[in-house]
Amino acid sequence: MVIYLKPGADADLVKKALIARGQWVQQVEKGRNGEVLGFQLASFSSAIPAAELERIEGVARVGVPASEHPRVDAQGPRVSVSGTEVGGGAPPVLLSGPCAVESEERIHEIARQLAPLGVSFLRGGAYKPRTSPYNFQGHGAEALRWLRRAADAHGLKVVTEAMSEVDVPLVAEFADLLQIGSRNMQNFSLLKAAGRSGRPVLLKRAMSATVEEWLLAGEYLLVHGAPGVIFCERGIRGFDGSTRNLLDLGAVALLSTVHRLPVVVDPSHATGRRDLVLPLAKAALAAGAAGVMIETHDDPSQALSDGPQALLPWQLRELAPFGEKR
Amino acid sequence: MVIYLKPGADADLVKKALIARGQWVQQVEKGRNGEVLGFQLASFSSAIPAAELERIEGVARVGVPASEHPRVDAQGPRVSVSGTEVGGGAPPVLLSGPCAVESEERIHEIARQLAPLGVSFLRGGAYKPRTSPYNFQGHGAEALRWLRRAADAHGLKVVTEAMSEVDVPLVAEFADLLQIGSRNMQNFSLLKAAGRSGRPVLLKRAMSATVEEWLLAGEYLLVHGAPGVIFCERGIRGFDGSTRNLLDLGAVALLSTVHRLPVVVDPSHATGRRDLVLPLAKAALAAGAAGVMIETHDDPSQALSDGPQALLPWQLRELAPFGEKR
Amino acid sequence: MVIYLKPGADADLVKKALIARGQWVQQVEKGRNGEVLGFQLASFSSAIPAAELERIEGVARVGVPASEHPRVDAQGPRVSVSGTEVGGGAPPVLLSGPCAVESEERIHEIARQLAPLGVSFLRGGAYKPRTSPYNFQGHGAEALRWLRRAADAHGLKVVTEAMSEVDVPLVAEFADLLQIGSRNMQNFSLLKAAGRSGRPVLLKRAMSATVEEWLLAGEYLLVHGAPGVIFCERGIRGFDGSTRNLLDLGAVALLSTVHRLPVVVDPSHATGRRDLVLPLAKAALAAGAAGVMIETHDDPSQALSDGPQALLPWQLRELAPFGEKR
Amino acid sequence: MVIYLKPGADADLVKKALIARGQWVQQVEKGRNGEVLGFQLASFSSAIPAAELERIEGVARVGVPASEHPRVDAQGPRVSVSGTEVGGGAPPVLLSGPCAVESEERIHEIARQLAPLGVSFLRGGAYKPRTSPYNFQGHGAEALRWLRRAADAHGLKVVTEAMSEVDVPLVAEFADLLQIGSRNMQNFSLLKAAGRSGRPVLLKRAMSATVEEWLLAGEYLLVHGAPGVIFCERGIRGFDGSTRNLLDLGAVALLSTVHRLPVVVDPSHATGRRDLVLPLAKAALAAGAAGVMIETHDDPSQALSDGPQALLPWQLRELAPFGEKR
Repeated sequence: MVIYLKPGADADLVKKALIARGQWVQQVEKGRNGEVLGFQLASFSSAIPAAELERIEGVARVGVPASEHPRVDAQGPRVSVSGTEVGGGAPPVLLSGPCAVESEERIHEIARQLAPLGVSFLRGGAYKPRTSPYNFQGHGAEALRWLRRAADAHGLKVVTEAMSEVDVPLVAEFADLLQIGSRNMQNFSLLKAAGRSGRPVLLKRAMSATVEEWLLAGEYLLVHGAPGVIFCERGIRGFDGSTRNLLDLGAVALLSTVHRLPVVVDPSHATGRRDLVLPLAKAALAAGAAGVMIETHDDPSQALSDGPQALLPWQLRELAPFGEKR
Repeated sequence: MVIYLKPGADADLVKKALIARGQWVQQVEKGRNGEVLGFQLASFSSAIPAAELERIEGVARVGVPASEHPRVDAQGPRVSVSGTEVGGGAPPVLLSGPCAVESEERIHEIARQLAPLGVSFLRGGAYKPRTSPYNFQGHGAEALRWLRRAADAHGLKVVTEAMSEVDVPLVAEFADLLQIGSRNMQNFSLLKAAGRSGRPVLLKRAMSATVEEWLLAGEYLLVHGAPGVIFCERGIRGFDGSTRNLLDLGAVALLSTVHRLPVVVDPSHATGRRDLVLPLAKAALAAGAAGVMIETHDDPSQALSDGPQALLPWQLRELAPFGEKR
Repeated sequence: MVIYLKPGADADLVKKALIARGQWVQQVEKGRNGEVLGFQLASFSSAIPAAELERIEGVARVGVPASEHPRVDAQGPRVSVSGTEVGGGAPPVLLSGPCAVESEERIHEIARQLAPLGVSFLRGGAYKPRTSPYNFQGHGAEALRWLRRAADAHGLKVVTEAMSEVDVPLVAEFADLLQIGSRNMQNFSLLKAAGRSGRPVLLKRAMSATVEEWLLAGEYLLVHGAPGVIFCERGIRGFDGSTRNLLDLGAVALLSTVHRLPVVVDPSHATGRRDLVLPLAKAALAAGAAGVMIETHDDPSQALSDGPQALLPWQLRELAPFGEKR
Repeated sequence: MVIYLKPGADADLVKKALIARGQWVQQVEKGRNGEVLGFQLASFSSAIPAAELERIEGVARVGVPASEHPRVDAQGPRVSVSGTEVGGGAPPVLLSGPCAVESEERIHEIARQLAPLGVSFLRGGAYKPRTSPYNFQGHGAEALRWLRRAADAHGLKVVTEAMSEVDVPLVAEFADLLQIGSRNMQNFSLLKAAGRSGRPVLLKRAMSATVEEWLLAGEYLLVHGAPGVIFCERGIRGFDGSTRNLLDLGAVALLSTVHRLPVVVDPSHATGRRDLVLPLAKAALAAGAAGVMIETHDDPSQALSDGPQALLPWQLRELAPFGEKR
């Protein structure tokens, strides 16, 4: 943003008024004779409506960049998924289940254990993005059916990932909430297909996406027909090996508080550590998350993927607001 | 860590037992005939005592790296600062005040406003590390006296930064808690001087320090005589300009939950944004922080530095646990 | 890697022998009585064949992790693309052309100007991955035909990107070298389709991919049928706004010198700055790159995308080895 | 930078003229009626003198931020160190020697081997910044004398690090070029002391410093009296463990080509890998470095620190321009 001054305005007073409103003056725009024409503000200034800044004595005009994601801006803080409200003051939601749908019996058993704990969405991958081609890639279409039946049997909604634009229609048939994974956040062909499916989408942030890039990926979804986008922070690439990824709760607070968008946090992938999942789930909710997505498994030792970070379902009880209210 | 198997052990069973305990097998150690000799575990595995892993059927021995920071490991979760307990189950502490001590009147007025809000430590810089040599560098020794008198007048403790090893004795005379800033976390000459001062130290994490490097900087302090170290996360270098830095609450949960060390969070520098300070302060406490350090100013528009991120003192009331309990 | 010692070996001598071979001892494995059993080596140790390390006096065995990308390891340093050799001692190749194929006339004109400058591959996007849904997305199938005809008319090969698995067969029909973009490096559905196309692939590194993840993406291509993979470094996510991305020539030297794989560098996207493209192109070749990919345009002011980073074709003359030799 | 248009100017033509000069339009400044008032340019636009941009038809004025480091800007590309010219078209210099000065005999022997290879500066630490307090911290004042005598005996200059402001006068007595290490780049007390010493300074970049922060650290040196600053890139913090750090040659090209400052590269610390030091040294020189600083040791297996990354002196012969010319 640039704050342009009226001719003859007292630049120092305007600057103080900007600071009083949490604005960082990054650069001073001067005219040929050294007079101050305006102030450029840093991008990490507090969000204040341009109209309020324009009311400052001496300010002529506020140059606000046009948003590149008007549909995301217009969406609002709450998205309804098959009747369950996410964000915008609704009680926080719990999305849980195994990394992958491994068998019909297992997903049923997990759903059975999760349902009484306040979980709203059953998660589980039918198609798994794996770094190595030699790892388990998911049970595909069959797993979608198992997942749906398990969820239905226990009054849960389904959230599951589509990895291929070709599979989107099938996944959308079984899922209440269509998940786009981190590695596909800028797979624009997939985003377009997901938008066209007509399902609300859970959009995971890419490993090193800026918040702006993340919002623009959401814009792709909305432009192509998605009825709503829920953002999901799952940790970005960090330099410290003591956690699997680096959880960015500053971005969560920003989306929730400033952009007023529904954002969910996945502390399981963010940390990879069972001993840190719950403290960070609590931190996420305190930062303004509309919900948390936590990997659980009835027997992590048998999990085909991500067992070390999976909690046992009963451990979710420590997140009191879910377990107690429902 | 490496888990060595007994000859003839069932490697698959051991692996499952490891996963059941939150351990990521990163690499399989094989003998000349392809038999599994052991498993290397990833650094982001859950912390489990070696003794517990050694009890797994088929495990011969657990290779645990010797800690390089034995004194930090032995310190314990609580540090006492002039009678105020920080960490280890003590009520969370609030450290607050302006970026810099600007005048005697001003620091008195700020202290007066902060005292009834549950603040324990008055902060304020007498020596300011500034990126540019042309910016205000602090009022030095005089400011130390102003700060001490203002704190004493309102029943507060003093936390303030030493930037130069030469100044350490003087700063230690006035401070209850000696602060080492981010840019000096690996200024080993300063760490040694700070240790020798005999004061407990608040050690800010460097912009891109690993947790291990941070702990080793703490080890320098303890080896050279510091009676206790309180760690302070203040945001690391990030790639997204929408916050000033990138707050790493995973590291906070790790220090608090796994290392059992007192860790305080500074959401003011972490975000630079007044509109995100309080949500992230709450998140920090939920993640296990022993306290939060928040910049406040009675008139941010007049601040000589960091005004845009300073809160007004009364805004701390939103952090209920402090305002209500004291 | 872990270096296991023979019982009674002189651990200190072994350690010195390891250091003499460029190995960093990260951790010492000790037995119950404190005797040294082995040394874990850091991942940034120099690459030395295990057999050579095993010949060190006192070493019993070297634990080498099984490679997860055997086909990449077996590929070799040179890939042949429609008769043009890339890597493995072949003269460095120059891949050049506009960001997008904008019209048949324009791509012909650019090809005409590039051909005498030693360019081997004409680049140009028919499908463009754009961060915003409102930006130009490419002319699609039609552009593929224009590109092919322009290349053929001037004796050039074609390299162009496929963004959608659905489009892969069509792109493969027109391209000599199929490009996978950064944002799709872990779009596994696309990698599988690209592999099945039977074309050699230019695989750009994702914004924050580790070298290992990059090699594993190459493994997906080879497992699914690609005859060869050429890696392309185009800058990773950095924290400094003075260049568009952060060029990692350490990874280039690693792939070229240690892994002995063909790797090409794109200094245009890496820097975004016309004034830095040529110095970094030269640096890339000095680091061991098998070629450089440089965006050029006959009139950058008219470019539909990335004009500010495009060079004029004649500026490539400064890269003497190409211009002079052909 | 902001480009302000004349009333009635053809905004589209101006935009094209900007693109033609390598400028990225990041944001369009519009007036109340939607008319284009100006363009904000991205920080990674090519460097073009404001005067040239002001000559574009339709441009009223170019808002250029005042530089915060006028003395660095005025320094020029060449610094003379005890008669040896560094940068600004002078032949590239080679700075070499062991990590630490370990004994008088050893440093003599190393100097003896280095002198015929075109080395200008003998490096070696008397004071060593070590991450752990338990590691070798250097032989101090005595080592300074050994280093000086060894250099003098073989016609070399001395570059060595000061870690403490207290030691600066002593180090300055023995060194031709005073080194400030990465961890101290923003130890402002040390920078001031170094400046006051009157010696030219080799300023290593901090682990995650922006280029602007690096230049501002140089400004501290010049403001406080340093006769010249040579910048040194030694790798920044990366996320990939296959190299010790992440070498940023984009920043080197930027300093050399755009800022026209002398910059030297340390590929030893940047990679930690003996097998990558020489390829990256060559790349650094191709990118515009004024010299390279390479760790060597006559017997790396005996080195008290950093042995695994040290080359043997004779290996420098591969860097032909030094070995042949002198």
